[in-house]
Amino acid sequence: MSDMAEHIVKSFEQELVRLRTQITDMGGMVERQVALACDAVLERDSDAAAQAVEADPKVDALEREVEQFVIRLLALRQPMAQDLRHIVAALKISGELERVGDYAKNVAKRSIVLDQFSMPYPLTGLAHMSQLVQQNLKSIIDALGENDADRAMEVWRSDEAVDAIYNALFRELITYMMEDPRNITPCAHLLFIAKNLERIGDHATNIAEMVYYAVKGEPIPEVRPKGDSSAYAVVRSPRE
Amino acid sequence: MSDMAEHIVKSFEQELVRLRTQITDMGGMVERQVALACDAVLERDSDAAAQAVEADPKVDALEREVEQFVIRLLALRQPMAQDLRHIVAALKISGELERVGDYAKNVAKRSIVLDQFSMPYPLTGLAHMSQLVQQNLKSIIDALGENDADRAMEVWRSDEAVDAIYNALFRELITYMMEDPRNITPCAHLLFIAKNLERIGDHATNIAEMVYYAVKGEPIPEVRPKGDSSAYAVVRSPRE
Repeated sequence: MSDMAEHIVKSFEQELVRLRTQITDMGGMVERQVALACDAVLERDSDAAAQAVEADPKVDALEREVEQFVIRLLALRQPMAQDLRHIVAALKISGELERVGDYAKNVAKRSIVLDQFSMPYPLTGLAHMSQLVQQNLKSIIDALGENDADRAMEVWRSDEAVDAIYNALFRELITYMMEDPRNITPCAHLLFIAKNLERIGDHATNIAEMVYYAVKGEPIPEVRPKGDSSAYAVVRSPRE
Repeated sequence: MSDMAEHIVKSFEQELVRLRTQITDMGGMVERQVALACDAVLERDSDAAAQAVEADPKVDALEREVEQFVIRLLALRQPMAQDLRHIVAALKISGELERVGDYAKNVAKRSIVLDQFSMPYPLTGLAHMSQLVQQNLKSIIDALGENDADRAMEVWRSDEAVDAIYNALFRELITYMMEDPRNITPCAHLLFIAKNLERIGDHATNIAEMVYYAVKGEPIPEVRPKGDSSAYAVVRSPRE
């Protein structure tokens, strides 16, 4: 290989490393945003809520940065095969992370409403759900940084547990609403908060599929388990 | 230009046309899916619900097809500048459309639960919202097919009206819940249905931004209006 050719290859490799760093940095920022949003709800921490909302424009800016860099890489480097797969995956993953950030922002906003209500019941289910979702998000960002398809597969599998908690929580919140109309507004926001966390879990699962595909060159060889069955949930009021 | 070079250019142009057709076909399919889901809720049409749910794997398959085709185009054609922008936009738009399909499926599923409840109030607000959202979705798919940045801008602007109806609907549904606990389960599903429609409107707005950028080479020169203010909504029960 000529010195020139070697130089071009080397700097392309550096660019790919830079792209991966951009994505894992974005992942780290989103991870913190989700942690802040969960603290805002569970610890009634309004500073955390404000920080989670303020982080959002930075996450959006990072997504645009990734897209610009991807377009430049595609135009100037004309990558093939596995490199191309990784670059397209990076673009798609940045879109997933941006949405996770949106959900975190929405959770944080709703926590501000919750602060105006007394909470007559423990948020145990929600705390458990937020723990699992944060764990999955962290794992998938690590898997992404290390090109670890096995770890991606683990995250993919553990989303079923998140869905199970969400479905139980849906019924629980509806029951609280039926017990006392004063619970309706806070529980409606808690329903959306739980749904947002469930969606964050789904996005972690989407990223798991993308990481697996980028590394292996083929999709995960299993059918995705059914998620949110709460869409079919019927909870009857005792008055009926 | 040599015959050979002309042939290559011509077939690349044909491929770009094919890519746009794939995306507008996908858009048409998603449009029908949303219409079916809205009929399922508003007309209590369970056949429409089933069709909307069944359409979803086809929409997902189309997204994968677009991605495969985009990767092939990037690898074999090494497109530059505007072509590259259009190809990357197509990839991102197919992701947006896939999500619109997901929301339509979720609306259709929830309509099946609603059928088990009597509806003591008219769904006027929801009907109005579904009309607006469907109109915006149709407009943006037309704008996409015609590379019409002005029309994309119109769709982008009209999302504010969708958000306004959604915010009013949120309060209305919470009030119904407070009036009678038997309303709680159906209204919880209606809250999510309304939220899903609001999200479909957001995705139409995202696509509008992508179409504008692909055509003009620069982002829409205005700040996106604030959307869902219902995250901050406090509705008090008369008992308080």
